[in-house]
Amino acid sequence: MLKAGGAAMVAGISTNGMAAPAQPATKVERWDVFEITLNGPKEGNPFLDIWVKAIFRKGGREMTIDGFYDGDGVYKVRFMPDSVGAWNYTTDSNAPVLKGKTGAVEVTPAAGGNHGPVSVRDTFHFGYADGTPYFPFGTTCYAWVHQTEERERETLAALKTGPFNKMRMCIFPKWYQYNHGVPPRFPFPRQGETNDYSRFNPEYFRHIEQRILDLRAMNVEADLILFHPYDHWGFQEMPAEVDDRYLRYVIARFAAYRNVWWSLANEFDLMKKKNTGDWDRYAEIVTESDPYGHLRSIHYSKAPYDYSRVWCTHAGVQDYAFDKAASWRSSWRKPVIFDECMYEGNINSRWGNLSGEEMTRRFWLCIVAGVYPGHGETYVTESDIENDKAVLWWSHGGTLKGTSPARIGFLRKMVEETAAVGGNQIGFTQIEPPYYPSAKRNQDESFLFYFDFHGPLYYDFPLPDKGKYRAELIDPWAMTLTPVAGEFSGKSRVKLTGKPYMAVRFVRV
Amino acid sequence: MLKAGGAAMVAGISTNGMAAPAQPATKVERWDVFEITLNGPKEGNPFLDIWVKAIFRKGGREMTIDGFYDGDGVYKVRFMPDSVGAWNYTTDSNAPVLKGKTGAVEVTPAAGGNHGPVSVRDTFHFGYADGTPYFPFGTTCYAWVHQTEERERETLAALKTGPFNKMRMCIFPKWYQYNHGVPPRFPFPRQGETNDYSRFNPEYFRHIEQRILDLRAMNVEADLILFHPYDHWGFQEMPAEVDDRYLRYVIARFAAYRNVWWSLANEFDLMKKKNTGDWDRYAEIVTESDPYGHLRSIHYSKAPYDYSRVWCTHAGVQDYAFDKAASWRSSWRKPVIFDECMYEGNINSRWGNLSGEEMTRRFWLCIVAGVYPGHGETYVTESDIENDKAVLWWSHGGTLKGTSPARIGFLRKMVEETAAVGGNQIGFTQIEPPYYPSAKRNQDESFLFYFDFHGPLYYDFPLPDKGKYRAELIDPWAMTLTPVAGEFSGKSRVKLTGKPYMAVRFVRV
Repeated sequence: MLKAGGAAMVAGISTNGMAAPAQPATKVERWDVFEITLNGPKEGNPFLDIWVKAIFRKGGREMTIDGFYDGDGVYKVRFMPDSVGAWNYTTDSNAPVLKGKTGAVEVTPAAGGNHGPVSVRDTFHFGYADGTPYFPFGTTCYAWVHQTEERERETLAALKTGPFNKMRMCIFPKWYQYNHGVPPRFPFPRQGETNDYSRFNPEYFRHIEQRILDLRAMNVEADLILFHPYDHWGFQEMPAEVDDRYLRYVIARFAAYRNVWWSLANEFDLMKKKNTGDWDRYAEIVTESDPYGHLRSIHYSKAPYDYSRVWCTHAGVQDYAFDKAASWRSSWRKPVIFDECMYEGNINSRWGNLSGEEMTRRFWLCIVAGVYPGHGETYVTESDIENDKAVLWWSHGGTLKGTSPARIGFLRKMVEETAAVGGNQIGFTQIEPPYYPSAKRNQDESFLFYFDFHGPLYYDFPLPDKGKYRAELIDPWAMTLTPVAGEFSGKSRVKLTGKPYMAVRFVRV
Repeated sequence: MLKAGGAAMVAGISTNGMAAPAQPATKVERWDVFEITLNGPKEGNPFLDIWVKAIFRKGGREMTIDGFYDGDGVYKVRFMPDSVGAWNYTTDSNAPVLKGKTGAVEVTPAAGGNHGPVSVRDTFHFGYADGTPYFPFGTTCYAWVHQTEERERETLAALKTGPFNKMRMCIFPKWYQYNHGVPPRFPFPRQGETNDYSRFNPEYFRHIEQRILDLRAMNVEADLILFHPYDHWGFQEMPAEVDDRYLRYVIARFAAYRNVWWSLANEFDLMKKKNTGDWDRYAEIVTESDPYGHLRSIHYSKAPYDYSRVWCTHAGVQDYAFDKAASWRSSWRKPVIFDECMYEGNINSRWGNLSGEEMTRRFWLCIVAGVYPGHGETYVTESDIENDKAVLWWSHGGTLKGTSPARIGFLRKMVEETAAVGGNQIGFTQIEPPYYPSAKRNQDESFLFYFDFHGPLYYDFPLPDKGKYRAELIDPWAMTLTPVAGEFSGKSRVKLTGKPYMAVRFVRV
């Protein structure tokens, strides 16, 4: 039995987040999900014994998409079409009943907020498949999909009104300070302390899919962390063949969601049971198994990864050497995201108690270095300290308590507006030598000067001699943008406030 | 004619800054100045033709002290006795009339604020000759001795009430932004644009001596900068033999003042006419000509100097890599002073517009790194910007306008109190690994934790298991020191405020 238009059936909601229509569709939007659902063998262990895939064709093009077993004799193949028009497909499998099924789907133009998947643009920046620039302003809630339904809905509500367009999140549950609860689901059938690594728990992955789709409906990219060391159940030290099978299963299930990014690991260098060969193998599996080439990176603790490696599409650093960012960018020739530059909060740990002012400052330092920042929040109350019931955004999600998100939203809006004039160069490039942290974009179309801890009463801005510029004085904390009278060209003295942490934007008239 | 006890006659005031007594003394305090004044030849060019010195003897000890020509046929030899008791001397010269003069002086114990000269103590720190620890909390007024009498008295008044115990100052006048005036005196006779390098202008040096003594009377060390590149009159490119003669003349005149330090240059690497050989020669001359071994260093702009060189007694860096300070200290095996870590102010230049908060922060970062900070101030008003009449403490002196000096005074008092309990180790040593910038001293007798931009709600302090400690919560900006109830031992959780830039001190009970 073949059911087309599964796009409307994924986890009971449509893939654009609306309620399911009465009739299944045979049409699907470009970059949405077309899902083939097949019934097949239940006996034995289909997770190990049965493979299924579909070959999609449009004109001369052919794409082979791996399917997966979803339990209860149900097999699925998920396809994200990247071009408009008539596609048809034929299934293949080592199970006769799943083999040779054919069908067609009409791919319609993307609509609404659907801009397609994000990829690298202009060497150091990002853009959606429809050409819209994408500036990552990400946050981190490592374990948010392993919480109660109520908390997860809180997190989604916070994201809906918040400034973030990327979420770093772990596929495996997390065991760490403030994280000592039992997760509601496990990725494998589990008896006591034993995981049955020969099978997956489809319900576990269906739940994560739901959350990826909830993020997709808000245009929040899901930066999926495939492995991590904060483990209590054995998932950081599975047999190699289980690691590999897990990666292929996750990719078969998730890759059709346009907002997915792959992060091989969080703090890979803390995973003592894995060696360089393992990480190379994972990189190869992710690169080869994902038919859409979603963004790929890895995150470290102490030992910086060599982000010049071909398989990484971008760097995802844990660092706060913002003065190094521009040189890293130019040596790696890739976008650099400061996934983790410490978190706003008030906990004991050195990485978790930045002020909102300092987090705001770090976001600005990234932008004027031509790289991208990452947010996280770790606030606790005194009563939290006594028990282990604290809810920290950085891991559990919930609600945002900090003062930086509003300022991050202001910065994101300013960056997107500055880029809105278009031009070949999407994002910012640091001005050399950076007397002050400062950047320009698109052949001097605009300049952004950030004064960090400097508070000059005036500054002689090194503008180009040709072209006239309008200036605005920006207060990143007060979130004000005040036009400066006049037009400027060449070396231009502009009166400032004498206050530190201010910025000035110049846009060509 | 021999006049002893010139101690009371230097530049018309006594060397402890009091009015001159009616009768010249034949007694002098330890580490004060005993001055021999002789009349000799005026004809020819005594600066080039005549040398004079005195050999001082006490018991088996013998010290040879170079004299100098002070103009008008007057020759002087200045001696700073370092031990109490009866010293006698004999002069020597290539002029018969200055040769073979003998005399005696009774050296009495130091009194009042006279602690003797400062030298390196305990590898990384400083102390006075009488054993009193000395913690440099310096400031910079490069050209303050080349101003009007009125301004110079303003500067002295500001120092009297200010927190600083060291002054970085140039012997040559300064030409630079905000510094385009004609100095009241020149070091050499000058006709139009031409300096007569064959002679010195004694009045020029007498004036500087007066100021060195004014500083000495307040126990402010005079960190004398011997060369600098901010020149308009030729002093940065004198013939080599003039450089050398100048150094020997300055040392013969100034070395007997106990509060003198020698800094070969400010931003030596900006003096393009000089090469490594020149700097090596200057270092040798200063080392050999100063009979008292005053502290010696050099200051750079872009190219860090190799402070492991034997002739440097300490490092005088221009930098703000406070996280490197502890490792520099341990590799150079010398005290490190951040002579210049930018200035509090509001001027255009990147190095001159720190907020008072940032300057205060930098002082704390130095102290907990086990190194020493340096202050400067560059505030201008809008009207200053129009004309070139601005008075900036950093160069002219005058009055202090900033908000950091009060906080620097608070920090200095805290550091001196913490050290007052004594012990072998005078100053602080950074705790490794510095999870937070933090330091301890004297075999765990006390600990100082500075949280910089971190604002934890509590922290588990890594105190030693043996010994009990009392704790105080310090607000470096509010300048408050609040005792924390109880006594602490071993890993100790202390409740904090959640505010950044706070500190905690632990002192053993």
